[in-house]
Amino acid sequence: MTLHAEYDPSNVFAKIIDGEIPSAKVHEDKDTLVIMDAFPQSRGHCLVIPKSPVRNLLELAPKDIGRLFGTVQRVAQAVDKAFNPDGIVVTQFNGAPAGQSVFHLHVHVIPKFEGEAFSGHGDAKSGDMDALKLLAGEIAAQL
Amino acid sequence: MTLHAEYDPSNVFAKIIDGEIPSAKVHEDKDTLVIMDAFPQSRGHCLVIPKSPVRNLLELAPKDIGRLFGTVQRVAQAVDKAFNPDGIVVTQFNGAPAGQSVFHLHVHVIPKFEGEAFSGHGDAKSGDMDALKLLAGEIAAQL
Repeated sequence: MTLHAEYDPSNVFAKIIDGEIPSAKVHEDKDTLVIMDAFPQSRGHCLVIPKSPVRNLLELAPKDIGRLFGTVQRVAQAVDKAFNPDGIVVTQFNGAPAGQSVFHLHVHVIPKFEGEAFSGHGDAKSGDMDALKLLAGEIAAQL
Repeated sequence: MTLHAEYDPSNVFAKIIDGEIPSAKVHEDKDTLVIMDAFPQSRGHCLVIPKSPVRNLLELAPKDIGRLFGTVQRVAQAVDKAFNPDGIVVTQFNGAPAGQSVFHLHVHVIPKFEGEAFSGHGDAKSGDMDALKLLAGEIAAQL
């Protein structure tokens, strides 16, 4: 059951939190990291990641929920101001069959532009790091 | 811009909150209503709806975020216990181009069963109310 398993600290987001792997960082505080998705489904697709070592939403300490989703809201508002999309999808996958590919809790904030389909998450090409850092700066400027 | 518009109190979730339209209710408290989605994408698909009259996540008062997503977490945990799915998708659409069809903020909690594709939200057949009420009871028993 992928919904219930031990947390594996070798996952890529743990390494990004620890600074072992580079990322296009939008925001970081004591509890939360916000980065650009390296395989964006649209321009401005970012991830809100709590630093707690938990696999999914079912496991997060209830006291940390408000802080995580407060950041999700602020990031969605900043994405709206930065890119003026026609919509924003907020989504969070629990378990591989649900679409989760990195087993450290994260929330997707994905701008939707009318007439542009999302890239499939697995199919999307890796965003160029320099381009992602520019987008990260545009969101950070609105946070 | 559908992301920014006046709240229209004639939407179907406002009417469900007011009791004008029936629903298969899982849970209700002062701030939040949890119901079965009438057009389920999988067995056990439910909705967490804050009672505040806001169109989307960008507009919710920050003080209400923790309570809403605390309920989302508890509902996801209850869905897990009730139906033992292989995964759970938590998703929230802001604006029609992002997939929002009712313009009162709501969060989808959708169990994923391995080997079963989701029905498209618009394509899914309306669930039979009696069947939805049975599922609602199974989730409520785990809350």
